[in-house]
Amino acid sequence: MSDQRSTPLTYAAAGVDIDAADATVRRYGELARRASRPEVLSDVGPFAGLFRLGKYDDPVLVSSADGVGTKLLIAKAAGRYDTVGQDLVNHCVNDILTAGAEPLFFLDYLATGDLSQDRRVEIVEGVATACQQQNVALVGGETADMSDVYRSGDYDIAGFIVGVVERDAVIDGSRLAAGDALIALPSNGLMTNGYSLVREVWGIGKGLGEERDRELLDTHYEELGTTLGEALLAIHPAFHEQLRPPLPRLKGLAHITGGGLAGNLSRIFPDGLAADLDAASWETPALFALIQRTGEIADEEMARAFNMGVAIVIAVAQEEAEAVLGRLDGAWRIGTVGERGADKPAVRGLS
Amino acid sequence: MSDQRSTPLTYAAAGVDIDAADATVRRYGELARRASRPEVLSDVGPFAGLFRLGKYDDPVLVSSADGVGTKLLIAKAAGRYDTVGQDLVNHCVNDILTAGAEPLFFLDYLATGDLSQDRRVEIVEGVATACQQQNVALVGGETADMSDVYRSGDYDIAGFIVGVVERDAVIDGSRLAAGDALIALPSNGLMTNGYSLVREVWGIGKGLGEERDRELLDTHYEELGTTLGEALLAIHPAFHEQLRPPLPRLKGLAHITGGGLAGNLSRIFPDGLAADLDAASWETPALFALIQRTGEIADEEMARAFNMGVAIVIAVAQEEAEAVLGRLDGAWRIGTVGERGADKPAVRGLS
Repeated sequence: MSDQRSTPLTYAAAGVDIDAADATVRRYGELARRASRPEVLSDVGPFAGLFRLGKYDDPVLVSSADGVGTKLLIAKAAGRYDTVGQDLVNHCVNDILTAGAEPLFFLDYLATGDLSQDRRVEIVEGVATACQQQNVALVGGETADMSDVYRSGDYDIAGFIVGVVERDAVIDGSRLAAGDALIALPSNGLMTNGYSLVREVWGIGKGLGEERDRELLDTHYEELGTTLGEALLAIHPAFHEQLRPPLPRLKGLAHITGGGLAGNLSRIFPDGLAADLDAASWETPALFALIQRTGEIADEEMARAFNMGVAIVIAVAQEEAEAVLGRLDGAWRIGTVGERGADKPAVRGLS
Repeated sequence: MSDQRSTPLTYAAAGVDIDAADATVRRYGELARRASRPEVLSDVGPFAGLFRLGKYDDPVLVSSADGVGTKLLIAKAAGRYDTVGQDLVNHCVNDILTAGAEPLFFLDYLATGDLSQDRRVEIVEGVATACQQQNVALVGGETADMSDVYRSGDYDIAGFIVGVVERDAVIDGSRLAAGDALIALPSNGLMTNGYSLVREVWGIGKGLGEERDRELLDTHYEELGTTLGEALLAIHPAFHEQLRPPLPRLKGLAHITGGGLAGNLSRIFPDGLAADLDAASWETPALFALIQRTGEIADEEMARAFNMGVAIVIAVAQEEAEAVLGRLDGAWRIGTVGERGADKPAVRGLS
């Protein structure tokens, strides 16, 4: 209207729409009620989530914070918003599982500039779906409106998990002994690591055009049995359910994330012990070969950036190995625990 | 060199330098050891933080996730990296204090494209400093290298806190009654809300030039007694120490964050009860008047975006009010609890 004065400055004009955010928070609340547990004392609460712990003799709280890295940009290029929340929760579940913990509750942090309210809900729906699957209560979260930090359509997501384990059941590597068996569980893709390198290989999410990115991701590869996009967006698997039965027998548990097999496995070995791996015990999945070939990446660089087909490594006493193997789909013997001299590497046999 | 072949693709070239990150993680580890508690079973662990809870009759775990919003961009424009971590921890401490919880441990998530390793450590140092001050253990964190999500020099930070309170000591508003006194604790600035609006007012962090931004922030205002930058970057205060003694007497506790006094106070009132506030009981600090005048912002918009001088509101029985007031520096009676009809607003007297 011609006689209108200049628009007064509002918070909404500055990129923060409190009314829209309030409506979204109500939708988050519904998701949280779906992903709840009897111990939760409130819905996504006014300021905090409340979780009644219950009876434990000597409870140790095990916590982890994680993101999903630039897998976000692959998902965005593919137009998918429902998977990253699942990646996030499952990654966190595995991280606290390394200490033997049962996951209890989860909180998410979602930050964006202008992502639509529907997209935000879709992302948190992914979080809630995985929480429900893993029997984790979604007790809270924060959505941050941060114009001028995130570019249009961009966002970031972080997750926080808390679990519990009795003090005497903590898995901390202290029971590891030379001769123990090392058993690997297979990954289903990159899980959540190495995406910046993959994006460099194909130039995805680099501002070279949405159509071009989409075309690359939609390319079907015979060797993958699917498209590049589907292979790259395979959801990070959670191993809590599968590993719960043998958990009391596990002497060590490594989650193969950033840093690869050697980088992560070495973190659980105390002085004096090392992993003797048998590199011939498994075949690297086709996705990694495709990435390496396309990007002309050196072997050692591949091994540091990617899991190369190994999601989890567990250590058990040799006499338990067969029984444990028999209950784990796709698992295989990847090596044994050996002795090691001072200042020697904790992981051997990879190259 | 002229005979050099094209550089082979490495993870570092893709923006993820695992060696540099490993060195930084060791520096984080030192910070975590500084900000520890006897209950912590490990340093910043391989995959998760471990915290031994100790003896409680019926422990309720209280958790919250938060960010600091675009206060980040003000800090960046001012060249400060040591304050935002403190904002983050203190904000989280207050959020779980609303339920009566003692803070136990904290994890941070830091994501960036190309922020230098020293800057990353400086940010986490801020986190550790506040954790130490608040007796919160820094048990873990995640630093995410996310080129192509964050612009050069940009980053985001999120925090996650867990505290504990006995079931029968949870503050949940259920003991509120008509006639109770409402007591306010003063804020020392914007705390962590309203920064996108403030940046709109002065055009800070909008790509109008670093020098221009710095000049604006370095401007001294008589009414503030300091520079605009110093006033805007005042660290979010934590109220746990101050409120711990009267905690058992508190019937309600609201942290005044996004949504302002009405938005946050209304969250703690059950059906049938409302806050009758006395708007004349305090003077809005000069910073808010300066923002409003400069931005020509409407009163109701100010009230929704900013805390307007109120950091925390607590509710206590009328007969306890004087004793509680006497122990809280700068606190004042801001109103009383009244009855309210169905579908009536939970906060009255502000306009």
